[in-house]
Amino acid sequence: MTASAPQIDPPFLGEPYLLTPGPLTTSYEVKQAMLRDWGSWDDDFRAMTRDMRSRLLALLGEGAGEFDCVPMQGSGSFAVEAMLASFVPRDGKALVLANGAYGLRSAQTLQYLGRAHQVLDKGDYLPPRGDEVAAILACDPSITHVVAIHCETSSGILNPVEEISEAVYAAGRKLLIDSMSAFGAIELKPSQIRYEAMVSSANKCIEGVPGFGFVIARKAELEAAKGNSHSLSLDVHAQWAHMEKTGQWRFTPPTHVVAAFLEALKAHEAEGGVEGRGARYTRNRDVMVAGMRELGFETLLQNRWLSPIIVTFFCPADANFVFGRFYELMKEKGFIIYPGKLTVVDSFRVGCIGQMDEHVMRQVVTAAKETLAEMGVASAAPPAAALEERAKLAA
Amino acid sequence: MTASAPQIDPPFLGEPYLLTPGPLTTSYEVKQAMLRDWGSWDDDFRAMTRDMRSRLLALLGEGAGEFDCVPMQGSGSFAVEAMLASFVPRDGKALVLANGAYGLRSAQTLQYLGRAHQVLDKGDYLPPRGDEVAAILACDPSITHVVAIHCETSSGILNPVEEISEAVYAAGRKLLIDSMSAFGAIELKPSQIRYEAMVSSANKCIEGVPGFGFVIARKAELEAAKGNSHSLSLDVHAQWAHMEKTGQWRFTPPTHVVAAFLEALKAHEAEGGVEGRGARYTRNRDVMVAGMRELGFETLLQNRWLSPIIVTFFCPADANFVFGRFYELMKEKGFIIYPGKLTVVDSFRVGCIGQMDEHVMRQVVTAAKETLAEMGVASAAPPAAALEERAKLAA
Repeated sequence: MTASAPQIDPPFLGEPYLLTPGPLTTSYEVKQAMLRDWGSWDDDFRAMTRDMRSRLLALLGEGAGEFDCVPMQGSGSFAVEAMLASFVPRDGKALVLANGAYGLRSAQTLQYLGRAHQVLDKGDYLPPRGDEVAAILACDPSITHVVAIHCETSSGILNPVEEISEAVYAAGRKLLIDSMSAFGAIELKPSQIRYEAMVSSANKCIEGVPGFGFVIARKAELEAAKGNSHSLSLDVHAQWAHMEKTGQWRFTPPTHVVAAFLEALKAHEAEGGVEGRGARYTRNRDVMVAGMRELGFETLLQNRWLSPIIVTFFCPADANFVFGRFYELMKEKGFIIYPGKLTVVDSFRVGCIGQMDEHVMRQVVTAAKETLAEMGVASAAPPAAALEERAKLAA
Repeated sequence: MTASAPQIDPPFLGEPYLLTPGPLTTSYEVKQAMLRDWGSWDDDFRAMTRDMRSRLLALLGEGAGEFDCVPMQGSGSFAVEAMLASFVPRDGKALVLANGAYGLRSAQTLQYLGRAHQVLDKGDYLPPRGDEVAAILACDPSITHVVAIHCETSSGILNPVEEISEAVYAAGRKLLIDSMSAFGAIELKPSQIRYEAMVSSANKCIEGVPGFGFVIARKAELEAAKGNSHSLSLDVHAQWAHMEKTGQWRFTPPTHVVAAFLEALKAHEAEGGVEGRGARYTRNRDVMVAGMRELGFETLLQNRWLSPIIVTFFCPADANFVFGRFYELMKEKGFIIYPGKLTVVDSFRVGCIGQMDEHVMRQVVTAAKETLAEMGVASAAPPAAALEERAKLAA
């Protein structure tokens, strides 16, 4: 471990590391913050909510003053639905940039909402590019908003949101970003990339436990969102207005999860904020990917598109490789990995986020090596079809 | 303490008791269950979800086999919205029986949903009666569903859901119950009272921590609910179908909150289930109300309507009584009480639920007595207007 690397404690009582896109492995201190009860109406808890909101806003850096932070109960998808319903007006139209499950989920949400939308579906992992966005917007002046996924967890691709943003605003439209799995580890500074609103959740790169998400949006958009929402519970404007007025959440907040998140935000700051957190995850990814490649595994994506959040590997072609067994044997060794989500070829995913450092990632690689040997898998090389699939990225 | 009374540990590290309608004071064991992380995709967590659902269903007793339990992320109000949107069809019409904030919130939710509805608004606390319901249903055959609040926390009244249910089914309509603050302490057995669906949440009488709610509904209604929901996140049918198929929640569950709730369900069973839990809360209420009345405080409700969940007291008429100061002085003594929600006269509320027994309730009364003395309040008697208000109940 280098001098600057953080000290990562192993999980409590031998529980496995979660090499997943969240819920993830959190620190003991974060969980310990849940060992008391708070009254949601009480001043002490209001102060916690205030502190949390201002710490989250501070992560935006310069220009944060134009934004406000609105926490929303439920999972991340609840917060995405809240954002879409609140900021895409009923007579608006959204262009959804999809290259995986989360993009498609946004489109499905708009379908539920009855809001006009169009989907640019790039399949399992190809990135939506700025020029493609520009071309679609030029053809359809009725599109008012573009919805982009920052890191699409389905494949682990880091989408090019900067060039997307440029295309969107060059055409005079507005950008909404689902930064669920990226915010807190990858910069999303309004001084560098323009957008109207973004969402993330407690149990991703800030390393809290699951139970709520949050919308960070321009105040002007929050003001204008009044009356847009289809849902009382998911109304971002109403939540914001009530919180501004009373300091309270409209409906019962997940008090313990909020307490844990506040602890997680303090640890995030101590680690050097977005830059420090991102550096550890990047090192996690680099060490893990290098080790897996040495074992013969191949990543779905070229290095350029690999996020420091989660990485997709092709399943080996070897007939002895069965994912269910690989999963169980890895779990026995203390590592919970994640199934793949590709539609064309078999794959699995390994997360780089949570309370883990490069030492842990080396243990992951060792565990994978041992597991392959136990399964009698001679080569981790993927089938030819996988490599043909990957060649699309270069085309 | 009598031999049969449970042993209640004091809160951790001198934190105050929450005499509120939830979030409430939970046991240390419940909170301790949050000290590890779970992968939401993993078999271990799926087993926890399965166990939780079947334990909740078992609380219904005879006839539970016709129902299923669908947990829903978010606060209790999210679960209420999910229930209303999923079970009142788009061409249906709901009659909402309101006597406080939660009834009105259901009406507001239906307004957001664009579902036809009518409100029987009984004001701050008067109970909606069976004959009133029967009369409205007789006049309006287009009403398909009736929405009732089991215990209306605004006043603490226990509404007469049995006679309401009889009126609803005698007229061939369907009943949906918001049993948020009552379920787990007051019986709601389908063998005794007919209904199609009910909701409650993790942080009420089961004594878990906040983060999700749950809908318990007849399987036939769950089947029929497909396509009704206005919201992807809050779609009860979709959550149910996915959970039945995969054992998983559709979107990230609040894993730690679920673990805590499972621990709370075990403690609930050990205490004697709904009957045992209800008996402790009833004793809490009886001891606390008797003590407060001895101090000169008056309850809003006559004994008949007093729930064992939360009790509303009139603020004393004495000019030295200021609620904000009373709250702070009670908090300093270790008790967080709750403001009132009456529109006509000033009031405050004291909860009877959570990890508290009659010994704690005696300390609450002693703290109130000392606080009155510190504030220089000679008499806790309410103003004449309050007693006139209360006389409405007898009329």
